[in-house]
Amino acid sequence: MKKLLVAFSACLALLSFNTKQKKQRVVFFGDSITEAGVKPTGFITKLSGMLQQKGNANNYELLGAGIGGNKVYDLYLRMEDDVLAKSPDIVVIWVGVNDVWHKRTYGTGTDADKFEKFYNAIIKKLQAKQIKVFICTPAAIGEKTDFSNELDGDLNKYASIIRNIAKNNNCPLIDLRKMTLDYNLKNNPENKDRGILTTDGVHLNETGNNAVADIMYSTIFK
Amino acid sequence: MKKLLVAFSACLALLSFNTKQKKQRVVFFGDSITEAGVKPTGFITKLSGMLQQKGNANNYELLGAGIGGNKVYDLYLRMEDDVLAKSPDIVVIWVGVNDVWHKRTYGTGTDADKFEKFYNAIIKKLQAKQIKVFICTPAAIGEKTDFSNELDGDLNKYASIIRNIAKNNNCPLIDLRKMTLDYNLKNNPENKDRGILTTDGVHLNETGNNAVADIMYSTIFK
Amino acid sequence: MKKLLVAFSACLALLSFNTKQKKQRVVFFGDSITEAGVKPTGFITKLSGMLQQKGNANNYELLGAGIGGNKVYDLYLRMEDDVLAKSPDIVVIWVGVNDVWHKRTYGTGTDADKFEKFYNAIIKKLQAKQIKVFICTPAAIGEKTDFSNELDGDLNKYASIIRNIAKNNNCPLIDLRKMTLDYNLKNNPENKDRGILTTDGVHLNETGNNAVADIMYSTIFK
Amino acid sequence: MKKLLVAFSACLALLSFNTKQKKQRVVFFGDSITEAGVKPTGFITKLSGMLQQKGNANNYELLGAGIGGNKVYDLYLRMEDDVLAKSPDIVVIWVGVNDVWHKRTYGTGTDADKFEKFYNAIIKKLQAKQIKVFICTPAAIGEKTDFSNELDGDLNKYASIIRNIAKNNNCPLIDLRKMTLDYNLKNNPENKDRGILTTDGVHLNETGNNAVADIMYSTIFK
Repeated sequence: MKKLLVAFSACLALLSFNTKQKKQRVVFFGDSITEAGVKPTGFITKLSGMLQQKGNANNYELLGAGIGGNKVYDLYLRMEDDVLAKSPDIVVIWVGVNDVWHKRTYGTGTDADKFEKFYNAIIKKLQAKQIKVFICTPAAIGEKTDFSNELDGDLNKYASIIRNIAKNNNCPLIDLRKMTLDYNLKNNPENKDRGILTTDGVHLNETGNNAVADIMYSTIFK
Repeated sequence: MKKLLVAFSACLALLSFNTKQKKQRVVFFGDSITEAGVKPTGFITKLSGMLQQKGNANNYELLGAGIGGNKVYDLYLRMEDDVLAKSPDIVVIWVGVNDVWHKRTYGTGTDADKFEKFYNAIIKKLQAKQIKVFICTPAAIGEKTDFSNELDGDLNKYASIIRNIAKNNNCPLIDLRKMTLDYNLKNNPENKDRGILTTDGVHLNETGNNAVADIMYSTIFK
Repeated sequence: MKKLLVAFSACLALLSFNTKQKKQRVVFFGDSITEAGVKPTGFITKLSGMLQQKGNANNYELLGAGIGGNKVYDLYLRMEDDVLAKSPDIVVIWVGVNDVWHKRTYGTGTDADKFEKFYNAIIKKLQAKQIKVFICTPAAIGEKTDFSNELDGDLNKYASIIRNIAKNNNCPLIDLRKMTLDYNLKNNPENKDRGILTTDGVHLNETGNNAVADIMYSTIFK
Repeated sequence: MKKLLVAFSACLALLSFNTKQKKQRVVFFGDSITEAGVKPTGFITKLSGMLQQKGNANNYELLGAGIGGNKVYDLYLRMEDDVLAKSPDIVVIWVGVNDVWHKRTYGTGTDADKFEKFYNAIIKKLQAKQIKVFICTPAAIGEKTDFSNELDGDLNKYASIIRNIAKNNNCPLIDLRKMTLDYNLKNNPENKDRGILTTDGVHLNETGNNAVADIMYSTIFK
């Protein structure tokens, strides 16, 4: 009997050792904003720091998979190599700014219905591998609060599409668009088009990286 | 006493003759929305009806000068022939939808700063001839109320530019953008993109023509 | 000897029965131009007629799989349902006009490098199933011969990309762009922008359908 | 003696008065390409050097009036201040690249028919003041020789419009588009998109500035 107990304890120890080894791998999948997230002051780096502070660092490994200029179909085209090949447990998708923006800058934005189709296709492929998928609305193209950022209407439309995608696919939503609008309404009394959460209306400044890290932490790691 | 009465009658006759002569000529200067304003159910036709109803018909003559697809610089290019040649007392300018819309449809919208320059140039030329100028903000490209009409941001920007032009040039403003947004917030609970004040998101339906006629009457003819 | 003859006849009968069964299925995969190809005067209908005339009708079955407005990634998204599900032996891809055109009309054309990636991905999937793939360059957006059709430069660029894709993937090329330019140089002395091979600069008229059927017949069924 | 001296002085004064008066003022009116023309290696600076070399320097004064990003209606809006205020004898207009290019980059290119209207309006105003007007076709947006520069079709269209404007207004034409195409066909065997006459497909390099100076000299100062 004693022997049995010892063997059982050993098993448990081994098991707990194993689970320690089973650090959850989180891949952040997106465009230039995510690409910058792994810089020293980026939101992914901040999330790593927060995990460490809260003694959670052994449970998660955070990886950036952002490439500047990416639209939803770029994510689709490179998801095998850049995400699935890393065998993630969790994927956080943040895309949409370029799908809207490139309409104006290059004439190569993404049709709303195709945006939805590719987004769904990405989620289906990830979920088929038991990967937990979090999705984000695009934060901003311009920070003005009087609804006069040139692409606000279209950006709101795509944010709205993403909210529906989250519902339909049972993905937790990180509503960065709402967070950004709310933050700006409180903190941008001069109706500036940049400098509140972003450096240029799109890419996160220090405050922006903190704000994104906060909302992501509370959604992903709560 | 008789002589006095005769003299008085003569004065009255003269006066009425004079006032007949002094009919104020109002030219509505704009794009396809204004072009449709002179149709049987258009807002200009409705304004004529309202003037008649209120016994004001002898004081004003209303003329339409709208051409489909016009942007601010089209107005500039044809203002001599289509407006000044008619010697108006009042000009109501309603332009801006195509300056925004054509960015997306033809790649030939109007830069915001040039929009302002041409608009100011038109007003200066009119005011130099002692013409009273009323200016309107563009009403809508899409009637959704959740700020997701594709071009809302840019349209709001141009509306905001026009509000400043009004202030700087001392022109009474007819804020059709604000009127449309307010009306839709109250009357478009299903967030439809057309069918409330417009047939297609841009051009006025019956309700829209009435709403525009009302706000214009109270501003121009009060 | 008699027995041998009988056996031989039986073999022949069996053979002819088998070849009847082995009708090659050809799917035409593309946009509105291909969609119209199955109409009574369309190029696919004409190809069927030509096969019949030449006693070739029993060997091929032609199916249209064109949808208006399709770009390369639309083909990619629907290839399982609309092409692979039909188990074709041959697929003829004709796409590219909207990838260029939608840049101007909707701001949602396709980046040149993504165009190539999706095109390659489609071909790989088809070839992996031993399907023979023919690919076409886009014919025209405007038929002017003085190189002043608005989108000529970009269309030539995408045609050039497709020529390279053909080489790299060992796909027979049907160079409709070259055919159209050559035909117009000979037959469009007045530099018209439509009416030579197309009704509107893009979609085939009777002459255009004949010309396309001719070049396709000689490439696919020779 | 005194008389002689006085007469001589009078002669000198007259001479200096005459030559001072007879220097023809040439204003180069255009966009960033013209703006760069007054730099040490720019084509306007080169033209001044050529005039000096040929002993022609006392007859002409060359002034640059180029501003980056200008389209035809920008020229129109600033022609009073930047051209007429300088009382030129000759104006060389070189515009069109941005009218085409901004369609793609900002959605604010110039409609072809409005391009023609503003161009004609500029010429009429200049000619009304007895100013001699030379006009140029836009040289290039990309130097590829296989007709696959993205905007070639549209650029050729606007070049063609300018050739007609020259005819209709009796303005000598400096056909920089033709010169550039011819030069590239001879000197760009590798089908490069830049580096032959331009640094970036649009703005002149040293060879480009020389080529433009040569063709301008022979047209304007012959």
